[in-house]
Amino acid sequence: MEDILNEVEAAFDPAALAVTLVRDHVADNVDALNALAADQAAAVLSYLPFDRAIDILDQPELDAAPDIVRALPEDLFATLLSGMAADRAADLFRQIDEPERARLLSRLDADTRKAISRVLVYPANTAGSIMTTEFVSAPSTWTVGQTLAHIRKVERTRETVYAIYVLDQSSRRLLQAVTLRRLIAAEPDAPILAAARHETPITVPALMDREEVARLITKYDLLAVPVVDAAGHVLGIVTVDDVIDAILEESSEDVQKFGGMEAIEQPYLQISFAHMIRKRAGWLCALFCSEMLTASAMQSFQAELEKALVLSVFIPLIMSSGGNSGSQATSLLIRSLALRELRLGEWWRVAIRELPTGLMLGAILGTLGMARIAVWQQFGFYDYGEHWMPIALTVGLALVGIVTFGSVTGSMLPFLLQRLGFDPASASAPFVATLVDVTGLVIYFGVALVILRGTLL
Amino acid sequence: MEDILNEVEAAFDPAALAVTLVRDHVADNVDALNALAADQAAAVLSYLPFDRAIDILDQPELDAAPDIVRALPEDLFATLLSGMAADRAADLFRQIDEPERARLLSRLDADTRKAISRVLVYPANTAGSIMTTEFVSAPSTWTVGQTLAHIRKVERTRETVYAIYVLDQSSRRLLQAVTLRRLIAAEPDAPILAAARHETPITVPALMDREEVARLITKYDLLAVPVVDAAGHVLGIVTVDDVIDAILEESSEDVQKFGGMEAIEQPYLQISFAHMIRKRAGWLCALFCSEMLTASAMQSFQAELEKALVLSVFIPLIMSSGGNSGSQATSLLIRSLALRELRLGEWWRVAIRELPTGLMLGAILGTLGMARIAVWQQFGFYDYGEHWMPIALTVGLALVGIVTFGSVTGSMLPFLLQRLGFDPASASAPFVATLVDVTGLVIYFGVALVILRGTLL
Repeated sequence: MEDILNEVEAAFDPAALAVTLVRDHVADNVDALNALAADQAAAVLSYLPFDRAIDILDQPELDAAPDIVRALPEDLFATLLSGMAADRAADLFRQIDEPERARLLSRLDADTRKAISRVLVYPANTAGSIMTTEFVSAPSTWTVGQTLAHIRKVERTRETVYAIYVLDQSSRRLLQAVTLRRLIAAEPDAPILAAARHETPITVPALMDREEVARLITKYDLLAVPVVDAAGHVLGIVTVDDVIDAILEESSEDVQKFGGMEAIEQPYLQISFAHMIRKRAGWLCALFCSEMLTASAMQSFQAELEKALVLSVFIPLIMSSGGNSGSQATSLLIRSLALRELRLGEWWRVAIRELPTGLMLGAILGTLGMARIAVWQQFGFYDYGEHWMPIALTVGLALVGIVTFGSVTGSMLPFLLQRLGFDPASASAPFVATLVDVTGLVIYFGVALVILRGTLL
Repeated sequence: MEDILNEVEAAFDPAALAVTLVRDHVADNVDALNALAADQAAAVLSYLPFDRAIDILDQPELDAAPDIVRALPEDLFATLLSGMAADRAADLFRQIDEPERARLLSRLDADTRKAISRVLVYPANTAGSIMTTEFVSAPSTWTVGQTLAHIRKVERTRETVYAIYVLDQSSRRLLQAVTLRRLIAAEPDAPILAAARHETPITVPALMDREEVARLITKYDLLAVPVVDAAGHVLGIVTVDDVIDAILEESSEDVQKFGGMEAIEQPYLQISFAHMIRKRAGWLCALFCSEMLTASAMQSFQAELEKALVLSVFIPLIMSSGGNSGSQATSLLIRSLALRELRLGEWWRVAIRELPTGLMLGAILGTLGMARIAVWQQFGFYDYGEHWMPIALTVGLALVGIVTFGSVTGSMLPFLLQRLGFDPASASAPFVATLVDVTGLVIYFGVALVILRGTLL
């Protein structure tokens, strides 16, 4: 690989590179092309056999596919696009804005254009947008042998042949899904329906979220799931490899969102500076403006701080503990909701578990905090004054209150977001920390007012 | 579903429930059993046909599988376990501690025990631990027709028949992998190797991490990948559905770790109180102890605060901005490293991108912060004193410094952890915030000392 790349940099020879690539696996070709500029990659594609070039374009891992196809010579563009899987081609056009999209589509032959347009009507991230229309179907009147003969004939033009969809002869509605393994194990003369499982086939509507489709495919261990319209006609199928790509993308998005930013799809080094700032500044500014409330809270406690400045020492420690316990609880609940381990209505079961958990964790941290103050005071590392014991108690009790508040708030936030129609994964660690910070300050000074009244305050 | 569960609660009748379950899909049976206690679930299994009971136990979604099999009558235990996929059975025994594990294994017949033990030797989360030994192989001397006849015979006892592994006649080493679709499309009289792709087959070693296996299966769009020993003998295969389960689990773990806790596998409501505290208290205490450094930093700035108490107002705001920008950068880089978009050696390319990004984001927040102070002062919401302008400048410049420091530190942390041999995903949002907090305070007071010298300080 390294050698190939060095050669390329020295003197770029697309024809020579194409000869090398044909010997490798398609997925490795994608890696090689990802290292090139789009016009260079397009030049290499034009030297490859059509089959291979189409195979490469069909890989979702090809980063700059829209730029590459734009750089193709006009006749090659039409040939390769008509060979591609319709769902991949549609995905590619979805990344090209109008009016260029319409202009490029008009270069294709009518059939290809129709197949792609059929997928393009579905919003991104739905079952319809990742389905392929190249599946195998058979009328219910066929025998096993007839169906196998049909599969042999169409095998090359179908994305998968491992699931065969049996349609009603007249209405063309889906009756059953038969797997290829059961088909080849069955008697050739038997009717095709004899090889079916006789369970209602699992289907999905075209507008179902791809994450939901992934969940169904995983749950029922399917290799593909049919997308059907309201009347039960098969519009296309979503295959397991499309679903894995969807799961990987979603899990990236979840981690990025939890880190407090908008999801970015491109590889890090390909994100432009302006794009990076846009994706990060929005949330950062929103959090900053909410966090300004802490300044207001601090302003209202200036009188107390003037009397007992020593209280300021523990503000960062106490605030961060609330944020950390909240962030733990949120991450735990985001996953439980995403994996459907919990339903929305079960929020109260979570609340009554987080309350004792928060109290216990708060008690542990509170004890640590009081011990810290006692040790520093006794060994003379720092002098908290004559009232160091009530100060230690203030810190300890404030920690119990803040960690409990953080755990409960952090665990309820994903439920609240889901209830309001947002993705529970929008609850980010910085979001929770911001929610908890102001309350943390109020709890801290509140406890101080009660315990230190008559001594320091 | 709801009806079934209500019935169960009223009067638990395992035989009646079993009759209902047989009509449903296996995956739905798992949901129903997950709602029962382990001994009740075991009772229901004993009323089901063997095939169905084995199918249910084979689902990784069955939560309390180890408890359920322990509650089975002795003879049924041996029958069902011998029918299960060896990888699933091994996974189940992995969750049972010695000496009980040895005692239960001794109840099985020799063949089953051997098959399970062969998988049990591999550490959890490796290719070996999730592979199945029930795959189809064929000697290279067979024809396509002979192979298809063989598949028809063994279909019922194999986890997948969609990939056939062609072995060298004498050495039994792996030569090629042939897909079933190419096999049925080929001429029956042709030698089996004619249906192969003639590329070196993709294989994995038994100790490869399952996440890495998932990456290969995704990259090459495989339905299964063979696990081979050093000599090239096939030990077993990892199928795509095992890999999806692995990806889902890993992505849960990643989010939980990013939230600052140890990964928990069980569903939220099944975690015991003690377990929950253990998994959360460790990190929380570690972070708390590191965060104690902020108290030390605050102590050393008490003299400055005494002279200019107004500086305390912005401490929470400034600290949280550092943590938020760091958490963004970390989440972005964790995913880039996990998806292999970046190599370890490319850390400097990231550093030189994060530096200007951090400066820009810091300038945006700094401007907002200064505007806030100016507005509050001008409209009389709060009086920051006669030196409000240098104070605003201090806050603004400190924000530039802290956000830049947060972005750079947050982006480098995953690289550092990977370099030290840890999972980059161990870099949690609270971890980054803690790293950034102390430095944030130092930067803030440092800027204040320079700008406010001669006026307030």
